[in-house]
Amino acid sequence: MKVRTSRRMRGVAPSAVREILKVAERSDVLSFAGGLPAPELFPARELARAFEAVLKRSPGAALQYGITEGFLPLREWVADRLGARGIAASAEDVLVVSGSQQGIDLVARTLLDPGDTVLVENPSYLAALQAFSAYEAEVVALPGDDDGLRTELLEEGILENRPALIYVVPDFQNPRGTTLAPHRRKELAEVAQRHGIPVLEDDPYGALRFRGTAAAPIAALTDGLTFHLGTFSKTLAPGLRLGWVHGPRQLMRAMTVAKQACDLHTATLTQHAVVELLQTFDYEAHLEVIRAEYRRRCEAMLRALERTMPPGTRWSTPDGGLFLWLELPPGLRDDEVFEAAIEHAVAVVPGSGFFVGPPQHGFLRLNFSNQSEASIEIGMARLGRTLFDLQQASRSGEATAPLQ
Amino acid sequence: MKVRTSRRMRGVAPSAVREILKVAERSDVLSFAGGLPAPELFPARELARAFEAVLKRSPGAALQYGITEGFLPLREWVADRLGARGIAASAEDVLVVSGSQQGIDLVARTLLDPGDTVLVENPSYLAALQAFSAYEAEVVALPGDDDGLRTELLEEGILENRPALIYVVPDFQNPRGTTLAPHRRKELAEVAQRHGIPVLEDDPYGALRFRGTAAAPIAALTDGLTFHLGTFSKTLAPGLRLGWVHGPRQLMRAMTVAKQACDLHTATLTQHAVVELLQTFDYEAHLEVIRAEYRRRCEAMLRALERTMPPGTRWSTPDGGLFLWLELPPGLRDDEVFEAAIEHAVAVVPGSGFFVGPPQHGFLRLNFSNQSEASIEIGMARLGRTLFDLQQASRSGEATAPLQ
Repeated sequence: MKVRTSRRMRGVAPSAVREILKVAERSDVLSFAGGLPAPELFPARELARAFEAVLKRSPGAALQYGITEGFLPLREWVADRLGARGIAASAEDVLVVSGSQQGIDLVARTLLDPGDTVLVENPSYLAALQAFSAYEAEVVALPGDDDGLRTELLEEGILENRPALIYVVPDFQNPRGTTLAPHRRKELAEVAQRHGIPVLEDDPYGALRFRGTAAAPIAALTDGLTFHLGTFSKTLAPGLRLGWVHGPRQLMRAMTVAKQACDLHTATLTQHAVVELLQTFDYEAHLEVIRAEYRRRCEAMLRALERTMPPGTRWSTPDGGLFLWLELPPGLRDDEVFEAAIEHAVAVVPGSGFFVGPPQHGFLRLNFSNQSEASIEIGMARLGRTLFDLQQASRSGEATAPLQ
Repeated sequence: MKVRTSRRMRGVAPSAVREILKVAERSDVLSFAGGLPAPELFPARELARAFEAVLKRSPGAALQYGITEGFLPLREWVADRLGARGIAASAEDVLVVSGSQQGIDLVARTLLDPGDTVLVENPSYLAALQAFSAYEAEVVALPGDDDGLRTELLEEGILENRPALIYVVPDFQNPRGTTLAPHRRKELAEVAQRHGIPVLEDDPYGALRFRGTAAAPIAALTDGLTFHLGTFSKTLAPGLRLGWVHGPRQLMRAMTVAKQACDLHTATLTQHAVVELLQTFDYEAHLEVIRAEYRRRCEAMLRALERTMPPGTRWSTPDGGLFLWLELPPGLRDDEVFEAAIEHAVAVVPGSGFFVGPPQHGFLRLNFSNQSEASIEIGMARLGRTLFDLQQASRSGEATAPLQ
């Protein structure tokens, strides 16, 4: 019996990175491919205590159905944190979601009609592009550089495409690890406001800044226009699936109705346990521990790259987050590097999958949060050898078979 | 700044029942309005132990990102249970979802294009209708009776509407509490199969049968055509948000991609903890406890209705689930009963909100799972008095103001 799928699903490709991650799971392979936080830093014991406490104190409430908007004390905590970053936030305008991917999906569902355009930075976070394409939106990408999205091109992009949404990851962007410069945030906010284009500000990594000073979020620079997404995935644990959206009041009602139809509400128990956790442990101190560790790992990777990469290789120097972006020396392609690297028992993500439009084959995404400093040294040595070997082989005229 | 919402969201109404539930929250009101399971029966201590065990034994895995398909041991457990009910299920074709509402959403997302038709029973589960309308599908309702959907009308309905999907809750349907008779299941399966129309079989209550013998699920009677939805919401606790979809292999890949774009995956921690729970406690014995208690509550409600309702009132006699359906005596409207009942400190759901097409105003939905037998007696006495008072007032010519 052949059943036809909806038109929208025919346009959605499974995530290429997920397919790559399957290869990277071989036990001898050191993987820098995923976007995984360090599991050693999950506050497992504290979470166990928090779950126990709420299940003992208020099992009926913690296990029952809840309101779609989310558990009020959690929304108040979010509003307070956003307030501290200059966003005029009220708990009333916070919607608790099952991870920030759901926030992207709900904003897309609430705003996008088929054929609408979303402006993004190129390259960009894959799963956001996937969410937009599930609503049959067109994605138009503007180039970025070491300071993030090149906002001087934004107004022209708006006039040309009349987008329904601008999507941006201002802090430690995935895949490049770059941060949108303060003057560009202002420019983005001004241009969006002038044209009345809603902004989706995705901030999964903002709390992971280990160098430099935080710049104002776009939500603090715009008025009634920005959806700001946050998550506990990188600060507590991704396996909780707990995040939030703060957005314009006039649209949060529609967001809530959208979520109601999607999954009624986010797990009550998880919300209660995380509120208990936030009340009983030092979240700021916990963030400091993560930042310090990720800084060490990032620096270990930067040092190792200096030592191991062939001339002509370049890379970004992130101030936080999970990723850095490596530009291959001329003549090497990301797909052949990926395949050869697996032979050398090291996994990376070919950069081409992150591009909208014609793929660029000269880049790799490297994750530094999920391996120890020692493993990072070994892994980068393997990667360096991979690159040298490929250069040698190409000079000696050996054929290389690019990844299909 | 006025931002326009998508066309799809303009068609989605917030759940009327949710608005009603807000009124029902007054502390002096005895509520039979929600669809809440009994919180006293949540296995809170066992869950606390399960969360503790997995957070101690494998915190890294239980708190990390997971695969979209879901935790394999949980999918195997689901496949086993479905197998015991005659469904040829493989763990490979099971997708773990964040409550069965998400299963409805994902099937709709995967199958429905704007303008497609979904055939449902009238009256029907509101939040499913909401999910279909979020994909701009048309809902066409066929009448039901005490044996569920009148399947003898199905073929005509199919020929007339060329539906993309048939949605059915065969066991203890919400709102009527009725069960689809075995011969009708066969007829539904045969007709759907003959015309190649996919079926969404929503089974939140099947495990709550406290009387009679279970009939075969539609998924056991069809081949490669039925999505079968299950959930732990009524058997363990709704606050976990944990359910599953089993469906045709050729479509489960698209379902998985759809879920990936929606929320990446369902909470790893919850999946690990529930697997731990299922391995360490007697789930069947737990279900027996729930069934016995719900039977007592249902029987208490039936007895109380016999005693308290005015002549001409009728009600369904459910064999399981959470609800019964009450037909008001001639001359009374559900909306005026709702308002008057709140005055008598008892809350019910007006039946009209569950109808597709012209609302019928002669029905109430009563929940029996969320109040003790003693409270059920008091509540039904209040409801009976409400109905008698309204009849008296109407006979004495007093004006009544229907709910807007």
